[in-house]
Amino acid sequence: MCTTCGCPSEEHVHHHDHGEHISGGKISVETDILDKNNRYAGQNRALFREKGIFALNLVSSPGSGKTTILERTLADLSGELRCAVIEGDQQTDNDALRIAATGVPVRQINTGAGCHLDAHMVGHALEELSIAELEILFIENVGNLVCPAAFDLGEAHKVVVLSVTEGEDKPLKYPQMFHAADVMLLNKTDLLPHLDFDVEKCLEMARRVSPGIRIFRLSAKTGEGMAEWYEWLRGKR
Amino acid sequence: MCTTCGCPSEEHVHHHDHGEHISGGKISVETDILDKNNRYAGQNRALFREKGIFALNLVSSPGSGKTTILERTLADLSGELRCAVIEGDQQTDNDALRIAATGVPVRQINTGAGCHLDAHMVGHALEELSIAELEILFIENVGNLVCPAAFDLGEAHKVVVLSVTEGEDKPLKYPQMFHAADVMLLNKTDLLPHLDFDVEKCLEMARRVSPGIRIFRLSAKTGEGMAEWYEWLRGKR
Repeated sequence: MCTTCGCPSEEHVHHHDHGEHISGGKISVETDILDKNNRYAGQNRALFREKGIFALNLVSSPGSGKTTILERTLADLSGELRCAVIEGDQQTDNDALRIAATGVPVRQINTGAGCHLDAHMVGHALEELSIAELEILFIENVGNLVCPAAFDLGEAHKVVVLSVTEGEDKPLKYPQMFHAADVMLLNKTDLLPHLDFDVEKCLEMARRVSPGIRIFRLSAKTGEGMAEWYEWLRGKR
Repeated sequence: MCTTCGCPSEEHVHHHDHGEHISGGKISVETDILDKNNRYAGQNRALFREKGIFALNLVSSPGSGKTTILERTLADLSGELRCAVIEGDQQTDNDALRIAATGVPVRQINTGAGCHLDAHMVGHALEELSIAELEILFIENVGNLVCPAAFDLGEAHKVVVLSVTEGEDKPLKYPQMFHAADVMLLNKTDLLPHLDFDVEKCLEMARRVSPGIRIFRLSAKTGEGMAEWYEWLRGKR
């Protein structure tokens, strides 16, 4: 593991060890970070279990459409399911304002230069949310297909969102993230007629990295495919 | 700065200091990482100056089209400019194979779980490239709009690639990266007719974060706008 990213990586450590990068204590410092994160994640998970909350950690590249998926999902489901959202962003509260417009409770976490949410940040945000009656908590992570993969927030599932505009090879190029995810939302399918994107090849690559991954093809813009995603969410209540 | 990302962040440190996260020595460890990176970057920069090499560090979200831009640029320019490429990816050498097909020398760096290239990795790759006659070196970073912002590789400019499919608000949501970039390639303009994307709003946001940023609007797929980018590259030889 490498202190510069906090993610476990044999290759990266090996690479750094070539030179005069930090040595001695590096791996223990980083293990410590993930150990502490895992303890906080355990506390979050215990809270979710106690309160009967189904928590999802939405991860993706910037601009894959996580917030638009949430806006549409909340507009369509918040009448029947009690939802709340934790929004992670480097800066701005643009996304939290978009979620707030749906009437659903939301807390923003700004990470500054930080590249991911950690379980401690989420624990703080939970203290500020009214969760007594909550059924589903959506945690929208910082847009980053790398670093959030290593940080358990206490969620039931990591849900990776991939836009068809990003190319079908992303599961193989960012395997830690797709391996960590149990669910994948293949978004912006309305743009498929304008792209050279091989859906079946993409799904095959995703399943190669994460066998058993549950995949929904949808467009948050047109609404196509959203019904199956909603049905899955209802079944998890 | 935070050990989990290696990026300088007041907010992030503040956040971590709320809890029982690593304290004492954290900031010094991270400053050390960037200090060492900056020393390696200085060595790379001195080498580029000595050899008359114009080096660009291409940064973006995953799937914004960096490799496609490079493929087309090399196909069109490698007859008149001596180019080489360093490819950064978590895993796979897909991109390096695409570049190799253009006939231009290329070295792949796989970062494993690592979230960015650092100057030390690039220095190693330079040892393996024939750079005696080189005029332009393109370094394609790991697809990540966060962490690569903090790591100088010795380049003349960071060139941020933004796809119009990602939404116009990305410069404000990932301000460190857009602030660090002097040049922006707004890619996939061929898809504009199918999107709700406000080009002028995006450019205004980019300039707010990085006044004086040089912006090229282009589509590596159709070729529109590429001529201005080529003209700029020729002028930097």
